[in-house]
Amino acid sequence: MTKFVKQWSRKAGLPPGTLVPVGTPSGEAVTIDVIRYSEHDVTESRVNSVEEAARLRQAGAVTWIDVSGVEDVEVLEAFGRVFGLHALVLEDVMNTDQRPKLEEHDAYLFVAVKMLGWNEARGDIDGEHMSVILGEDFVISFGEKAGDVFDPVRERIRKAKVRIRKMGADYLAYALLDMIVDNYFGVLERLGSDVDELEQQLLDDRAEDPLSRLHQIKREIVYLRKSVWPLRDVVSGLLRSDCTFVREEIKPFLHDLYDHTIQVMDTIETFRDISGGLMDLHLSVASNRMNSVMKVLTVIATIFMPPTLLVGVYGMNFEFMPELHSRWGYPMVWVGIVLVVTGMLAYFRKMRWI
Amino acid sequence: MTKFVKQWSRKAGLPPGTLVPVGTPSGEAVTIDVIRYSEHDVTESRVNSVEEAARLRQAGAVTWIDVSGVEDVEVLEAFGRVFGLHALVLEDVMNTDQRPKLEEHDAYLFVAVKMLGWNEARGDIDGEHMSVILGEDFVISFGEKAGDVFDPVRERIRKAKVRIRKMGADYLAYALLDMIVDNYFGVLERLGSDVDELEQQLLDDRAEDPLSRLHQIKREIVYLRKSVWPLRDVVSGLLRSDCTFVREEIKPFLHDLYDHTIQVMDTIETFRDISGGLMDLHLSVASNRMNSVMKVLTVIATIFMPPTLLVGVYGMNFEFMPELHSRWGYPMVWVGIVLVVTGMLAYFRKMRWI
Amino acid sequence: MTKFVKQWSRKAGLPPGTLVPVGTPSGEAVTIDVIRYSEHDVTESRVNSVEEAARLRQAGAVTWIDVSGVEDVEVLEAFGRVFGLHALVLEDVMNTDQRPKLEEHDAYLFVAVKMLGWNEARGDIDGEHMSVILGEDFVISFGEKAGDVFDPVRERIRKAKVRIRKMGADYLAYALLDMIVDNYFGVLERLGSDVDELEQQLLDDRAEDPLSRLHQIKREIVYLRKSVWPLRDVVSGLLRSDCTFVREEIKPFLHDLYDHTIQVMDTIETFRDISGGLMDLHLSVASNRMNSVMKVLTVIATIFMPPTLLVGVYGMNFEFMPELHSRWGYPMVWVGIVLVVTGMLAYFRKMRWI
Amino acid sequence: MTKFVKQWSRKAGLPPGTLVPVGTPSGEAVTIDVIRYSEHDVTESRVNSVEEAARLRQAGAVTWIDVSGVEDVEVLEAFGRVFGLHALVLEDVMNTDQRPKLEEHDAYLFVAVKMLGWNEARGDIDGEHMSVILGEDFVISFGEKAGDVFDPVRERIRKAKVRIRKMGADYLAYALLDMIVDNYFGVLERLGSDVDELEQQLLDDRAEDPLSRLHQIKREIVYLRKSVWPLRDVVSGLLRSDCTFVREEIKPFLHDLYDHTIQVMDTIETFRDISGGLMDLHLSVASNRMNSVMKVLTVIATIFMPPTLLVGVYGMNFEFMPELHSRWGYPMVWVGIVLVVTGMLAYFRKMRWI
Amino acid sequence: MTKFVKQWSRKAGLPPGTLVPVGTPSGEAVTIDVIRYSEHDVTESRVNSVEEAARLRQAGAVTWIDVSGVEDVEVLEAFGRVFGLHALVLEDVMNTDQRPKLEEHDAYLFVAVKMLGWNEARGDIDGEHMSVILGEDFVISFGEKAGDVFDPVRERIRKAKVRIRKMGADYLAYALLDMIVDNYFGVLERLGSDVDELEQQLLDDRAEDPLSRLHQIKREIVYLRKSVWPLRDVVSGLLRSDCTFVREEIKPFLHDLYDHTIQVMDTIETFRDISGGLMDLHLSVASNRMNSVMKVLTVIATIFMPPTLLVGVYGMNFEFMPELHSRWGYPMVWVGIVLVVTGMLAYFRKMRWI
Repeated sequence: MTKFVKQWSRKAGLPPGTLVPVGTPSGEAVTIDVIRYSEHDVTESRVNSVEEAARLRQAGAVTWIDVSGVEDVEVLEAFGRVFGLHALVLEDVMNTDQRPKLEEHDAYLFVAVKMLGWNEARGDIDGEHMSVILGEDFVISFGEKAGDVFDPVRERIRKAKVRIRKMGADYLAYALLDMIVDNYFGVLERLGSDVDELEQQLLDDRAEDPLSRLHQIKREIVYLRKSVWPLRDVVSGLLRSDCTFVREEIKPFLHDLYDHTIQVMDTIETFRDISGGLMDLHLSVASNRMNSVMKVLTVIATIFMPPTLLVGVYGMNFEFMPELHSRWGYPMVWVGIVLVVTGMLAYFRKMRWI
Repeated sequence: MTKFVKQWSRKAGLPPGTLVPVGTPSGEAVTIDVIRYSEHDVTESRVNSVEEAARLRQAGAVTWIDVSGVEDVEVLEAFGRVFGLHALVLEDVMNTDQRPKLEEHDAYLFVAVKMLGWNEARGDIDGEHMSVILGEDFVISFGEKAGDVFDPVRERIRKAKVRIRKMGADYLAYALLDMIVDNYFGVLERLGSDVDELEQQLLDDRAEDPLSRLHQIKREIVYLRKSVWPLRDVVSGLLRSDCTFVREEIKPFLHDLYDHTIQVMDTIETFRDISGGLMDLHLSVASNRMNSVMKVLTVIATIFMPPTLLVGVYGMNFEFMPELHSRWGYPMVWVGIVLVVTGMLAYFRKMRWI
Repeated sequence: MTKFVKQWSRKAGLPPGTLVPVGTPSGEAVTIDVIRYSEHDVTESRVNSVEEAARLRQAGAVTWIDVSGVEDVEVLEAFGRVFGLHALVLEDVMNTDQRPKLEEHDAYLFVAVKMLGWNEARGDIDGEHMSVILGEDFVISFGEKAGDVFDPVRERIRKAKVRIRKMGADYLAYALLDMIVDNYFGVLERLGSDVDELEQQLLDDRAEDPLSRLHQIKREIVYLRKSVWPLRDVVSGLLRSDCTFVREEIKPFLHDLYDHTIQVMDTIETFRDISGGLMDLHLSVASNRMNSVMKVLTVIATIFMPPTLLVGVYGMNFEFMPELHSRWGYPMVWVGIVLVVTGMLAYFRKMRWI
Repeated sequence: MTKFVKQWSRKAGLPPGTLVPVGTPSGEAVTIDVIRYSEHDVTESRVNSVEEAARLRQAGAVTWIDVSGVEDVEVLEAFGRVFGLHALVLEDVMNTDQRPKLEEHDAYLFVAVKMLGWNEARGDIDGEHMSVILGEDFVISFGEKAGDVFDPVRERIRKAKVRIRKMGADYLAYALLDMIVDNYFGVLERLGSDVDELEQQLLDDRAEDPLSRLHQIKREIVYLRKSVWPLRDVVSGLLRSDCTFVREEIKPFLHDLYDHTIQVMDTIETFRDISGGLMDLHLSVASNRMNSVMKVLTVIATIFMPPTLLVGVYGMNFEFMPELHSRWGYPMVWVGIVLVVTGMLAYFRKMRWI
Repeated sequence: MTKFVKQWSRKAGLPPGTLVPVGTPSGEAVTIDVIRYSEHDVTESRVNSVEEAARLRQAGAVTWIDVSGVEDVEVLEAFGRVFGLHALVLEDVMNTDQRPKLEEHDAYLFVAVKMLGWNEARGDIDGEHMSVILGEDFVISFGEKAGDVFDPVRERIRKAKVRIRKMGADYLAYALLDMIVDNYFGVLERLGSDVDELEQQLLDDRAEDPLSRLHQIKREIVYLRKSVWPLRDVVSGLLRSDCTFVREEIKPFLHDLYDHTIQVMDTIETFRDISGGLMDLHLSVASNRMNSVMKVLTVIATIFMPPTLLVGVYGMNFEFMPELHSRWGYPMVWVGIVLVVTGMLAYFRKMRWI
């Protein structure tokens, strides 16, 4: 189950800016991949130290440093030292619980977002904390674990004569954020098909364990909202930013990104409305079924009680019971039973109970 | 059932501005109809290429290019080239999932809206993505499929001496949007009569399958809200626009359009309130019915159990049971049964259960 | 039942500003009453044409033209021509579905409001669409049907030395709006007493058909909100208006009107809260009653089943049943029945079920 | 029960500013008490006319005119005449339904608030309409009935060398408002202890008639909200007022008052949340109890039906029933009954029903 | 149970600024600890009087006066006198019910916050009212009781060459607030694990007394919201403050604190959503269980009633009942019973009831 609560207390009492990993350590080593590109040129390399990455920067080219793993305090401190990042920024990079935010510093912009993906094994949403730092001519991206989320961007850079090769570091940062938001749609698609399936099954009254599935869906919606709502402020902050590295020509792209964010939020709200309706539906279906069970019980009891009384009467041992000696007594009892039962059934039919 | 989830993932990873159709391909060919009119003159023609359409433009006349079908990448790219439209605008034209929005560019305004209609066959709302591009002296409208939604506007243009012939391209764009919003009222009427009918049936307790009908109504309201809410921002954006093609004299018309949009939203909210009340009504009606079933069961059980015990007593085989030998034993049992049943009925009447 | 849905589709496709009646035609003829007054002088007359009404205007006097009936297209067009009203304003005057709004034009202000009254026959709220047009020295009021709603204002004008005779057309327009809002209180009073009565009956558990009454109340609250919410914007728009016919000295009166509007809205919200609580109350009362029915059933079943089994036992026909031959067998069975029943009753008393 | 609906219709049709009492007349005579004080001097007197009160004003001293009773039209008109109050202000003073508001006039400020108190006899909240008029050197306070709410302020004025004696009329007005808000806390305390008590009883499942108590609490919360919400705007309006009688040095006190108002609102919202939760609690408790009743019924029915069938079998009168002639038939039936019952009980224990 | 209602009435009628303790007196003595530090130097001492504390202040050093206990009126008055604090500030320091707020005075800033901790003994949240007063070169912190909450800050100050030793009083105030907010995470962790546990138990249907636990959780969430919501305004007020003691270089730290506050609020809202869902879950689980109980009852009744009637029939004492004399009568009855029961079971299986 998606956890909303982490071991925050581990940090209580430490001075602000102290670098402490929050989640359970993954044990993976940190890798640093550097891609430097300009309109005519691309070089890719995996480096061993932050200093080495910094040395690769070159005038007129964009340097993208992609870091996997945020648990290594030393590496982060090196980034702080080499690129002049504030201690609190480093803390936010490391804090995998950090909610999405945008921070404008003099020499760089800091963006924290959540990368979401559907975990097929566990059947719910996987969230990964990602940080993007945008400088004049470089972008540093931090992810929790090695992965191939940014591979399509890498592919695009490798091609010659594409837009990304002609634009600056700001476009690269935008492309990374766009990639992340694009991934949200995949999660929405998956969640949406879960919602649709459950809805159809509820309407056909053949859902199995609808309660926990609905509860699971609701939790995921809560988690999605928590991840996506602050993102709107991040993107609109970028749009309104008067920082010089965010050039005017990428504003239409940011606007497009903003639109996508709104659409994600819209869809989440729609799912919320629908899953709220599903709860009502489930409760009504359950109460309908109860109703029909009650009716069966009532019909049964009502049909069998009067004949049972009747046969009880003629089971009495009184000496003086004239009917007992009549030839027609026994058949009349059967006639009486049939009449009573038929009458009851007719009444229930009239009442639309059966 | 109205689908809220599309195959978004198909686009994930592609660079922004890439033209990819979103929905299932309709297979219809794209048609381009051009109407050019001025106060004294109207010409209509179906053209084969975007270039041909562009050549029909003439100083002092308004050119309306009505395009059916948005799945043909080449045609859209031709529009981009010939009319200088931004790649992201073309993407939005093609993206049939795009929520309503207004974008102001230097040379044109881009408006995306949803055309809604009632699908009698499927019994729910049909949504079509429409885009309107307004330039200095031309309007380009894109619809998902060939249709006659704009026929009334076409008719008006054909008449001489009508207001539309004297006004510019901005009035034409307004007329198209007004047509679309007018169609919403038809959908509201249809939905409203569904709501009214269900309400009346619930109050008379003769609704069939109210749950899925109510659920269907709610889904449609969710879908309507999603389509109409952003429209308000679009129209108020047009009203506040300081773009030069939106002349001062059409502001009253835009204001009227804004009023209609508000009225549509108001009506949707009213339906939402009422359909929320219908759910309560349905649940209460169901619980009332359960109550009355329970009462019948209780009355039956209570009336038959005591006599059944009584006759059981005199069915016992004890040797020494003085009553069994009495002449009046058997009649007294009947008297007892009648008394008990009458007393019970009186008690239930007093308790207002029967 | 108050209808929220009208035959809007009748207008779809017509050019904006086309005059088409919306509701069912009432068949009543249009009447035009003109009152012209100044501090010293009042003349009243019923005129046959708009032109005649216009001729009655006089410098230094206020002319009030009160029109009953808005279905006659020719009359409205005459007003448009003679007083220079915009086609869209005339459309709004005719559109009895128009929500309350304020429109400022150069030569006049247009105000649309709802006149509400309690329809004793139908037992719900009657809404009438009213329009007030305020010019420099005239007020035109349009109502759906001939009525006496404005009679108190007429009475006041007829008296000499009253405030209204000394003030301008703006005060007259204010007085008409104030009259309309004053009528809302009557509707609230009536609705409030319905709510109070139902509440009291629910608490005493003697309400008849509470569901449909509650539903009716909720519908009326929805209708009231829809009519009154936009009114606040209308009045605050008048307050903030810098139009020259709305003189500074009537601002305190408009402020008072605004206050009344707020109070109406406040009261509606209070009713909404309370009627929401009534639904809960009704459901709880119903579930309480179900509970007590269930208890009775359980008590009955529990009390009669054990004795029934006991007497069944001694109704068996085994040859070897020593008790059957005992003198005390029969009395002991009665003792057993009494003991079991007494024990059960004591248990239920302890459980607080009876 | 707190009434939300008054006889508003009594005023419909009257010109604005007409003085008409709204509630039921109390029949009490109006009393006017005047306290004039400066740093060194205090005089108190009960006067017979408004003119007399006005004559007591003195340069350098603050005059507080405390009026009990607002139903006497003549007295109010005298105040209007003598102190130059607007007709609409007098109407608001008299209108005991007036919601809290602040009105700034050139020569005075008008504040309307609700004085709340707990009516021990009726067991709910008593609301009294109070008006405070603050002029340059005087304060006029109007209350619905004679009472001692302002006695503590009076006591403080009588003491020498207290802050109130050194400050102006604005501080006096503040002190009166502060007194009123302080009284709210008493009401909250009382309501809060009701909520707490009901909550505890619901949790212990020993609440009597929880529904109507809860409903009563909710009504009181609705009433409190209605009275207190507008007060925030009143106090913040005073804080932001640039009127010259509201001197800079009392701003900290107004800020403190604002804080108290916020705290009152906060507490009301907390009660609202909790009482909403109590409704859920009550419903759940009721449904739990129903559940346990159902279980008892099911257990009883299930335990007694099989043995009843069994003894029925051996009550049959067939000639050829070998068991009937067996010595062990009867004991075996008992053994069978015990086995069946024991098995059932074990099953129910396993199902955690008993 | 967390109390939302205090003995406010004790203060009613007293002049503003009067110092009266609100809660139940703790009886603990007030202690005053002073730490004075500069970059090179730290001195700690426990003083006996406020004057002594004030004398310890020194140019170029930061003086932190930590006061435990706020019930001693004399000590507070001494602080007011010595440090020039406003009477209303002292009142707020003493008022342990004061909601979080920020007040800017000329010579100092006043911040009131709630210190929250998890009370393991009582199993709920403990709230303590804390006040922090920040002056040019001093910080005074007031807590309700002696405790070690600030010990980590004290520890940090004692170390040489740490950031806190180089910064001013503003950083110390920030560090104290940060410590308090850090403690919130501990409370959230604890509450979150309670929510998670209850959720898991509800889903597994093995929760004990879920209602009161859920109710307790909801109360705590209400209490947390009440404590944390105003904190956001406090911190954002500090951020926007143009007061000279809040230097520009601590703004990033305040921003970080603001972020933490938002995260606390976010998490509370998430818990609120989830605990709302838990109520639904609990109700559904309960209604499911009821459903299954009802089904068992119905199955039992339906299976046993027909055979019981059948054996009743052959228990009748009619003289002429041919079956009674048949050799196969008795076995046929058994066959009939088995057939009926088997048929019923098959039917119920088909209906998915068993």
